[in-house]
Amino acid sequence: MTESLGVSLLGAGNVGGGVLAALAAGAERYAARVGRPLEVRRVLVRDASKRRKGVSKRVLVDSLDAVLVDSRTRIVIELMGGERPAFDYIRRCLESGRHVVTANKEVMAKHGGELLRTAAAHGVRLLYEASVGGGIPIISPLSRDLLANEVTAVTAIINGTTNYMLTAMAQRGSDYAGVLAEAQRLGYAEPDPTADVEGIDAAYKLAILCGLAFHVDVSPADVTRRGITRLTARDFRYAEELGYAIKLLASGRLIEGELVASVQPVFVPKAEPLARVDGVLNAVQVEGDLVGRVIFEGPGAGPMPTASAVLADVLDVARDLVASRPPSETIAYRPVVVRPSSKVVSRFYMRVTVLDQPGVLARIATILGKHDISIASVIQFETDARSGTAELVITTHASPGGELEAAVKEITALNVVSEVGNVLPMVGA
Amino acid sequence: MTESLGVSLLGAGNVGGGVLAALAAGAERYAARVGRPLEVRRVLVRDASKRRKGVSKRVLVDSLDAVLVDSRTRIVIELMGGERPAFDYIRRCLESGRHVVTANKEVMAKHGGELLRTAAAHGVRLLYEASVGGGIPIISPLSRDLLANEVTAVTAIINGTTNYMLTAMAQRGSDYAGVLAEAQRLGYAEPDPTADVEGIDAAYKLAILCGLAFHVDVSPADVTRRGITRLTARDFRYAEELGYAIKLLASGRLIEGELVASVQPVFVPKAEPLARVDGVLNAVQVEGDLVGRVIFEGPGAGPMPTASAVLADVLDVARDLVASRPPSETIAYRPVVVRPSSKVVSRFYMRVTVLDQPGVLARIATILGKHDISIASVIQFETDARSGTAELVITTHASPGGELEAAVKEITALNVVSEVGNVLPMVGA
Repeated sequence: MTESLGVSLLGAGNVGGGVLAALAAGAERYAARVGRPLEVRRVLVRDASKRRKGVSKRVLVDSLDAVLVDSRTRIVIELMGGERPAFDYIRRCLESGRHVVTANKEVMAKHGGELLRTAAAHGVRLLYEASVGGGIPIISPLSRDLLANEVTAVTAIINGTTNYMLTAMAQRGSDYAGVLAEAQRLGYAEPDPTADVEGIDAAYKLAILCGLAFHVDVSPADVTRRGITRLTARDFRYAEELGYAIKLLASGRLIEGELVASVQPVFVPKAEPLARVDGVLNAVQVEGDLVGRVIFEGPGAGPMPTASAVLADVLDVARDLVASRPPSETIAYRPVVVRPSSKVVSRFYMRVTVLDQPGVLARIATILGKHDISIASVIQFETDARSGTAELVITTHASPGGELEAAVKEITALNVVSEVGNVLPMVGA
Repeated sequence: MTESLGVSLLGAGNVGGGVLAALAAGAERYAARVGRPLEVRRVLVRDASKRRKGVSKRVLVDSLDAVLVDSRTRIVIELMGGERPAFDYIRRCLESGRHVVTANKEVMAKHGGELLRTAAAHGVRLLYEASVGGGIPIISPLSRDLLANEVTAVTAIINGTTNYMLTAMAQRGSDYAGVLAEAQRLGYAEPDPTADVEGIDAAYKLAILCGLAFHVDVSPADVTRRGITRLTARDFRYAEELGYAIKLLASGRLIEGELVASVQPVFVPKAEPLARVDGVLNAVQVEGDLVGRVIFEGPGAGPMPTASAVLADVLDVARDLVASRPPSETIAYRPVVVRPSSKVVSRFYMRVTVLDQPGVLARIATILGKHDISIASVIQFETDARSGTAELVITTHASPGGELEAAVKEITALNVVSEVGNVLPMVGA
């Protein structure tokens, strides 16, 4: 009989449970596809005395050492999430000569470069397909299938929670607080939704994608980030009237060799494929000099889709082990200069609440003109007779973010302006 | 200085020209990503005396032997197209110990199994990402990224020519002959369009996809095939009114272990992502037990997108050579039983031209009822007073294809029926 290949897990939560269930259900096909059966050797959990469905109590351990002493564990799957202690655990596994498969976006975004070097130094692999886009293949396509391209842009919807919320706001005219409560009720949003709604989760994933796409060192701090908490039902109504969807877009580009990376709500023309990615779906669009534009779409979260990505990596490592294939050389990343968002040129949408009296638009237009910002359209959408205010929606032609910010400051200071609401970039020239 | 890795091409047409141009333009980045520079050693062409832009005359040869004698050629890229002599050339290259990268769908669909076994026997790799979907990564994602799944269905738009034509018919109400002439004028369709419009090209690609997705031996002959030549402007008008697009869908499924594979025009509900894939774009949707549904979309043809896929394979082999990675084990395919289309259950659309007189529908409905086919909707769309005929559009609930075919035969024979027009499957339950 062929000897089994030992696999151990760090963490047995939702995703870990999915991975264990899939390993059990697919044992026969995985053995056939790998050439040797996979065997779950150890599962690291907080409380090893607690019973878990589908996990033999025999394999439960509560310390990393208990995993590392098992000489038959060749592959470790890290599914604990969070930066610590996952980062140290992954490093120790690599140093002990174990291949590691992780779904940990935070660790890979913050420490991916260092860990990949550690893996290379110890002749093992570190794979992380599940860290971005759940079940959607995107890490491997960027690493392998699009490697002949000079990738020029990555544009993605990579946070299902916020995409669910924005879709609900767009389709039902609901306000932010209402859809957040609903998303929490449905389990799509955490009790503390900060990481999702402030774009932190998406920024980790974008940092990983930019590194792979452009072969540069990117840290999450290099990503300009704005959340969705200030969006109102009115923004969605105006977007609809203008022919746009509002999406929390993760966007990375190299412009004249400088990195421009942002996670923010953006007006996306309805004709764009990404405008039609609704609900909890994720999608990643990659533009390259040879391929043009390709899009990968699918479920961005959930235990079984994530298990699909995790186990793809596990099977890949396992097949390498069976064929005695050493790891490929790591492609070196180079340092990159981050272009400040003030210098990034874009079209903009701006919602301004003004006193409903003559001459107001002229004063706003004068300020914009002074900053060389040319107006694409102005529409007065609503007038509130009670407060004597009107709402102007202004869209601009392409302008540097810094000029726009300066103009918004001056416009806000006008005594005829009661509020400058959201100012959002628009996709398109 | 590091020694270069020798690459030779068979064929220097459109795609070959694109590959050579990309290799020249990207020489520096490919050297960095591989770890050694790539060097074009030989290019097999029909007439080696003819000058070609961007190709040194020194490398042009007009016989395969002149490629094979070059001991520094490690990778051969086959871009001749067609079954012969490409099939024999690929085999001879593999037998000589060369890794082969091909874009040849016909050879891979008809002889892929044999060639992959030849490659394995000689310790080399045969890669064919470019054979399906042009620049869209799909072969490698099915082989690697979705390998943990039991794939249940592959549904694809994988012929850009026909998708361009169907999109034009839908958007402009044009007839078949008109859009074919236009597609030929634009270079999207060949002077002899048979391979595209009869679904032959798509059937090759589907056979390749089904093999990879289900790990079974599939030949193009296993694919039920119907072309687009009989579609009329009226079919598109009725589809629109019913909320459907008409797409030449390549569809493969395993039903109770039996293969159901077809390339045919199908009614696709407008809410389905594939209904919105327009023009020359391609898209492949894969359903798996873990991942649910993922979609890969992008340019399905063209020299540069195809070069993107070809060179991804070349870089993959080259990186393996640099790291001395032997090939992985080939995953064995098993034989499969093909389920006859008469036993495949589907909803159907049927357009029937009838005499405009009472009782006609009753007679048709009686025949359908006799075959246990239940009607989902009947709409009388047009009446032609001159000929005294009316057009009935009937949609059915899910019924076996064989029953429907038998019913259509009986309906056609009714003296009140002048013609049964297109009968097309509909996606959805």
